[in-house]
Amino acid sequence: MAISELLDTLRGASSRHLEELIQWLQIPSISSDSHRRVEVTKAAEWVAEKLDRAGLEVEKIETEGHPMVYAQTPVVPGAPVVVVYGHYDVQPVEPLEEWISGPFDPTVRDGNLYARGATDDKGQVLTHVQSVCDWLASGESLPLQIKFLIEGEEEVGSRNLEAMLPTLSERLACDCVVISDSSQYADGQPAITYGLRGLATYELRVDGPSQDLHSGSFGGAVMNPAIALCHLISSMVDQQGRIQIPGFYDRVRPLEPRERQQWKGLPQDDREFAAAVGVDQLFGEGGFTTDERRWARPTFDVNGLRSGHQGEGVKTIIPATASAKISFRLVPDQDPQEITPALEQHLRKHAPAGVRWSLRVEHGAPGMLANTESRFVQAATDAIEKAFGVKPVLIREGGSIPIVTRFQEVLGCDCLLLGWGLSDDNAHSPNEKFRVEDYHRGIVASAILWDEIGKLNQSPKT
Amino acid sequence: MAISELLDTLRGASSRHLEELIQWLQIPSISSDSHRRVEVTKAAEWVAEKLDRAGLEVEKIETEGHPMVYAQTPVVPGAPVVVVYGHYDVQPVEPLEEWISGPFDPTVRDGNLYARGATDDKGQVLTHVQSVCDWLASGESLPLQIKFLIEGEEEVGSRNLEAMLPTLSERLACDCVVISDSSQYADGQPAITYGLRGLATYELRVDGPSQDLHSGSFGGAVMNPAIALCHLISSMVDQQGRIQIPGFYDRVRPLEPRERQQWKGLPQDDREFAAAVGVDQLFGEGGFTTDERRWARPTFDVNGLRSGHQGEGVKTIIPATASAKISFRLVPDQDPQEITPALEQHLRKHAPAGVRWSLRVEHGAPGMLANTESRFVQAATDAIEKAFGVKPVLIREGGSIPIVTRFQEVLGCDCLLLGWGLSDDNAHSPNEKFRVEDYHRGIVASAILWDEIGKLNQSPKT
Repeated sequence: MAISELLDTLRGASSRHLEELIQWLQIPSISSDSHRRVEVTKAAEWVAEKLDRAGLEVEKIETEGHPMVYAQTPVVPGAPVVVVYGHYDVQPVEPLEEWISGPFDPTVRDGNLYARGATDDKGQVLTHVQSVCDWLASGESLPLQIKFLIEGEEEVGSRNLEAMLPTLSERLACDCVVISDSSQYADGQPAITYGLRGLATYELRVDGPSQDLHSGSFGGAVMNPAIALCHLISSMVDQQGRIQIPGFYDRVRPLEPRERQQWKGLPQDDREFAAAVGVDQLFGEGGFTTDERRWARPTFDVNGLRSGHQGEGVKTIIPATASAKISFRLVPDQDPQEITPALEQHLRKHAPAGVRWSLRVEHGAPGMLANTESRFVQAATDAIEKAFGVKPVLIREGGSIPIVTRFQEVLGCDCLLLGWGLSDDNAHSPNEKFRVEDYHRGIVASAILWDEIGKLNQSPKT
Repeated sequence: MAISELLDTLRGASSRHLEELIQWLQIPSISSDSHRRVEVTKAAEWVAEKLDRAGLEVEKIETEGHPMVYAQTPVVPGAPVVVVYGHYDVQPVEPLEEWISGPFDPTVRDGNLYARGATDDKGQVLTHVQSVCDWLASGESLPLQIKFLIEGEEEVGSRNLEAMLPTLSERLACDCVVISDSSQYADGQPAITYGLRGLATYELRVDGPSQDLHSGSFGGAVMNPAIALCHLISSMVDQQGRIQIPGFYDRVRPLEPRERQQWKGLPQDDREFAAAVGVDQLFGEGGFTTDERRWARPTFDVNGLRSGHQGEGVKTIIPATASAKISFRLVPDQDPQEITPALEQHLRKHAPAGVRWSLRVEHGAPGMLANTESRFVQAATDAIEKAFGVKPVLIREGGSIPIVTRFQEVLGCDCLLLGWGLSDDNAHSPNEKFRVEDYHRGIVASAILWDEIGKLNQSPKT
């Protein structure tokens, strides 16, 4: 079979493809909602059955939480092995009143399919399921082996997958993991994401007197924990966002001149960006563009503050305690394990006398950089260009997907992050959407990708 | 009548004095609790009736809130006029489970009378009511005119009294206001309080993006309002508590060498003080003792912080907004009206780009300093020494009683703050108490005070 015949078949099946996505989206598989356990399992079964009907070898992998769906096509001797990772669970839907159509009543408006999970991630992972199922339905065999791993706990932290990954490593052995859970750079500009930032999150707490004190009787005699907390936070970062913890930047891998050059060509407009988020100007380290700062520079943020009186009116106290939720975004080759002692050392040095501080380590993950020179990136570039009519740009992403780094570490494979969505798809927000055309183009791009990867020699690793 | 006879009478009436205080304390006159309106009025009526029975001219002054009780003894030509100010309303009682006996079930244990309002302020103001009533009951006339003003909204800010003070100024015309709503310096060491700190309170708010943003996608591009708030607060005060706002100290009246000398003789122990509040060391501006810093130096405190995620776990956002409740304690001759523009100027200079700040002025009051050379201070010193057997020390107090400054301004009178209580009387806390012996000594001191003031010439002012 020529690939062109398959693409014709895929394009002819667009109604069915859309109908099937709508079916899947009707299942409210909110993984964080313990009242939705039945629906979450139903969403797993929906995709397991679809893969089973297409002839894949399917297995439901039980976990301590929601099950994972594993499915594989036959081994193709001498050809590469690809794992497609995705998730069938979705975010909560609150605030419900802001949805124009119901989150589990998928509705097409202006060329977009609106529903919770449309882009994150049912719609995107289904592009790969459709391309593989239709390929097999055509009677032809695939030119590579594909292994699906579609989990149900991505929106609640992938804890069980992360814990089980070492024991699954043999089954998941592969040359490349393909993930479609990100987005294009902009409307009409598809992208391959080759970098992610890491994360180190903490709760910093400052304790002072054993109870709230009257600020009249004690002000000037007892250190105020809320002020101490502000001093500590202020000491950690300057007004341009440059982190002041000694050694923090030691392992930061500099941007490659080549990637800086490439990103400069992206249609990024600071003024539009600022207006879209509602600020009068952007912010950050000098010497870097906005995309460079978001994607390839480490940052520090306070995610929450809490101390003393928060209600209406005045209560003139020295609060007994103050706390902050803080987080760093890390970049390769920073190690969250090394950030913690550096932060503690900084706090020891800067903490005022008369209060006690404590730091609770929440969680961390290193950043990720994929090899942009890999044959898989080349194959994906060709596939996307053929499907979308535009050559994809190579970008990074400022967020963190800890499981991707774990795949790299445990499976020793390449990674392809191929986003078919758009950055305004409202993942995690009301009125989540996925452009119908991007769904169909994603299916076509996926099929071409299998064809392109099939032309590669088997990895030297396997 | 010799004063000694009256004092014998007073000492012989101690059982009745205690019984009457217990009666008054049984009325739960919590002014902030709208379900207690009947009881609050009942407490006003209790003291009004007592004063009426003693032959004073009594008037219930209605306000938009709780009523004030006004009562006066006859004019004494050529003699001074004294206003006794106090309040019959009390603080809330929560947490109830921490009370050993019920807050409105007055109980004597170990020589202390436990009840809400025991020291703040029913017990203390009643000392003056008892001395006057018993004086009149003896058939003798007082050697001065006394005007009682006992209000029911002190614990909720005295707003109505403050607003009505100008219209009451003729009725309240006097040479001196006497207030017993503070405490002795220490057990066995009575005090006359001649200074109070003022207050300027604000809510400082920093607004950034129009909604919480994902710190992965936006961290490094958008200024974090919580960090901006920490920078601003940190910029306002150094680690020793020295306020960094230009001009802030310009009007601070230096401590008199004489008062510094006198306070040095007070039995103050930093180590005990720190241990009592649960910190390992005290804090504050160099060059001043703890009492000097608490009583006579201006201070800055953060009373509350609020921003972003405050619940369990991690939410990696750039919060849309952050806010702090902040307050300054001021000293003579600082003016809260001048602090606000200086603070605004400082914020304008230090606010980072990319966020917007706003400052809401809550309320303010200047500090107060009474004339320690006045004949009323001398009279009170003699009275206290005779009643307590110890000469009182002259101290200031770090808290603020805004109405006192208003009395000085509107009535142009002297002020005597005579505290019969102790600093560990748990005003505003569970197990509020008043030492029974101090109540009785307060009544005796009050009677001697009227005698001493009666010996003074009429004020040149009236």
